Amino acid sequence: MKKIKIGIFGCGTVGQGVIKVLNDFGALVEQRSGCAIEVARVVDRSLKEGECPHLDFKKVSKESDSILNDSSIDVVVELIGGVEAAREFVLAALSKGKHVVTANKALLAEHGAEIFQAAKKADCDIYFEASVAGGIPIIKALREGFVANHIEAIYGIVNGTCNYILSKMQESPASFNDVLKEAQEKGYAEADPTFDVEGIDSAHKLCLLASLMSGQWVDLNKISVEGITSLSNEDFEYAEMLGYVIKLLAIAKESKNGELEVRVHPTLLEKKHPMANVSGVYNSIYVKANPVGDALFYGRGAGAFPTASAVVSDIVDVARNIVSGTPNRIAPFWKSAREKKLKAPEKVESEYYLRFSVVDTPGVMGKISSILGKQKISISSVIQKERNEGEVVTVVVLTHSASKLKLAKALSEVDALEVIHQKTRVICLEREN
Amino acid sequence: MKKIKIGIFGCGTVGQGVIKVLNDFGALVEQRSGCAIEVARVVDRSLKEGECPHLDFKKVSKESDSILNDSSIDVVVELIGGVEAAREFVLAALSKGKHVVTANKALLAEHGAEIFQAAKKADCDIYFEASVAGGIPIIKALREGFVANHIEAIYGIVNGTCNYILSKMQESPASFNDVLKEAQEKGYAEADPTFDVEGIDSAHKLCLLASLMSGQWVDLNKISVEGITSLSNEDFEYAEMLGYVIKLLAIAKESKNGELEVRVHPTLLEKKHPMANVSGVYNSIYVKANPVGDALFYGRGAGAFPTASAVVSDIVDVARNIVSGTPNRIAPFWKSAREKKLKAPEKVESEYYLRFSVVDTPGVMGKISSILGKQKISISSVIQKERNEGEVVTVVVLTHSASKLKLAKALSEVDALEVIHQKTRVICLEREN
Repeated sequence: MKKIKIGIFGCGTVGQGVIKVLNDFGALVEQRSGCAIEVARVVDRSLKEGECPHLDFKKVSKESDSILNDSSIDVVVELIGGVEAAREFVLAALSKGKHVVTANKALLAEHGAEIFQAAKKADCDIYFEASVAGGIPIIKALREGFVANHIEAIYGIVNGTCNYILSKMQESPASFNDVLKEAQEKGYAEADPTFDVEGIDSAHKLCLLASLMSGQWVDLNKISVEGITSLSNEDFEYAEMLGYVIKLLAIAKESKNGELEVRVHPTLLEKKHPMANVSGVYNSIYVKANPVGDALFYGRGAGAFPTASAVVSDIVDVARNIVSGTPNRIAPFWKSAREKKLKAPEKVESEYYLRFSVVDTPGVMGKISSILGKQKISISSVIQKERNEGEVVTVVVLTHSASKLKLAKALSEVDALEVIHQKTRVICLEREN
Repeated sequence: MKKIKIGIFGCGTVGQGVIKVLNDFGALVEQRSGCAIEVARVVDRSLKEGECPHLDFKKVSKESDSILNDSSIDVVVELIGGVEAAREFVLAALSKGKHVVTANKALLAEHGAEIFQAAKKADCDIYFEASVAGGIPIIKALREGFVANHIEAIYGIVNGTCNYILSKMQESPASFNDVLKEAQEKGYAEADPTFDVEGIDSAHKLCLLASLMSGQWVDLNKISVEGITSLSNEDFEYAEMLGYVIKLLAIAKESKNGELEVRVHPTLLEKKHPMANVSGVYNSIYVKANPVGDALFYGRGAGAFPTASAVVSDIVDVARNIVSGTPNRIAPFWKSAREKKLKAPEKVESEYYLRFSVVDTPGVMGKISSILGKQKISISSVIQKERNEGEVVTVVVLTHSASKLKLAKALSEVDALEVIHQKTRVICLEREN
């Protein structure tokens, strides 16, 4: 049996998970795949002896060259997180002809164009299943299971922190800040949660999904991103009344004109939508493709062991490629026949949830709807819970589909009305169709 | 670019779907995989010229040898369905060193032990993604994505016909026979629906899933099977009242003592269970595994195009294996370290829904619960909608976990009571845990 030697950069939570999974399931992996995986070297600057069970501390080094210059090491597993040092190690590994497995979405989203190019030049594999929804083999499904499909749309709940917070806000009228604090106490949110709650982490993952979907590298900076920090309990309450939940979705979708939309934002979903019940820290990815139809994947998005499961499955795939002498079995980002243009964010069409704070006066809804009407935005539902003439009340409106540009024009006019008490709250709405 | 020649047995709905998908998406597949797939020969006894668009009729033959004896054909794609002729062609293909892709669950469930052995002996691939839940890449997920996992349980909604019927019965009080008739009219059920509604098709698929899960061949005849024909609207009504739906589940599950349970039967699922919302002809598979945790897959189970998508992804995998000279990259049924015993059906433990038809008399529930109690079966809920002393009424009981043997003992005693009007209806209940 061929033995494949790997070198691991980073022995934190995920690194230790990978070492435990290889220890506990290595024999099973050998039986199933015909490859034996040996951890030859671990580089970590702060790991102390005894901290990582099942790891012979003699294999631990602080020097990256102990992996990079060891020609017996076939595969580099990058698990240090962060961007700059990871980029350096990954590019160095590729330049030395080592294959790479990484769980680092930030690295790939920011430097993917460079890194995938380097891998191609070096004729090396780069696998990254763990970088998106660790417990869900979605990269493999898209690249291999759906190899004969044109992928029309991907909708992802890909950030467990946000989904936990939104699920809690949906269940009970706790404020965003209170729920965030609870999530931090439970270890579901970082001390500095910006990356997650502002949607940046979801955008990193969308960058990879959209690139796989379209066969071209999608620039992270072209993704329009809105986080969850400004959602209020009132929004959940009205959404509930109207039969919707609110989820942070990462959306990559081919428009009717063939352009590609890439966006991350809170979204109203009908309660019967297949993703509406995805709650807590779970992740889910919904794919619309031709000819396979629609498919949904659901599982744990993070955590040492789901992530380690994905990392080890990548290591096994790379190991098999090494054994068969065929790296780059699947080009991660094939060139699509015709490159897709990204749709300008203001041209994206959507249905909307609009929450108006208005002074309750006769005719106010008439004014608002005629302003919307001028932009050809038609209304599908209206809710006004209370009537209180002369006082500020909430009116919630759902609209039919319209471009963001038209909506922005209409709302700039609406928000200038004297009866409007504060800036109108807008949330996109996606329907299963 | 390497060109891989395939020969297709059977050009019915699925065969024509495969030819269309290869025609429409062949260029995409080439870009993505680096393999060109050529349909070299199609064997079909009844196909008429012009019936299958995109197929050069000169390639069609009635003679199986036109594929089997053509040494330029690398891969045989078996899509004729049925068992005997399919078995003959598949074994002949393997004996001639041709790799096999099949969508035929009945063939594999009945003759898998022989066929996988023949493939191993011939050092040939046999791929069968389309045989279970065509639109869901579940075989790939289990074999590759979860390669480093011990799979503890699989729950499948794997028969679209049954799921359509059960979804309809849940929505409206239409009888099984009426809904079946509607399903037949819509093309969701066969003229002779026995295979589907009696759970046999689900058992075929479970046989494959359980074998993949356990790493040993699971004998189809050892799977206990109950279909959906005796479910009544009353059962759906009571299930609804108690917060449950009824689904036909195919279950493979490792018991606490390490034995493997394999069973197909209608099952009560809590409405919040991830599979409860899987409705209509959709399929879904829920996997519990270590270390990945739980994961759910959802998609179309049948139909020409979802099935064709799976068949073509298999053809591409086999083609890549041919290019790299490494067939049998993944042993489909690795030997597990220790062979699992199948649990005797009567020893299976479950919670139960019991629907009693009793003459409404004081103390009757006391009698029933004391008989259950003698077998250590405790009750978790009771519903009696109407009181009508001296008349026959329905009482529904949910129990805590108990073995089927104990339940059978208790019910034989209960059903012998004079106040019991007809045989007690039993449905298993599965909880997410």
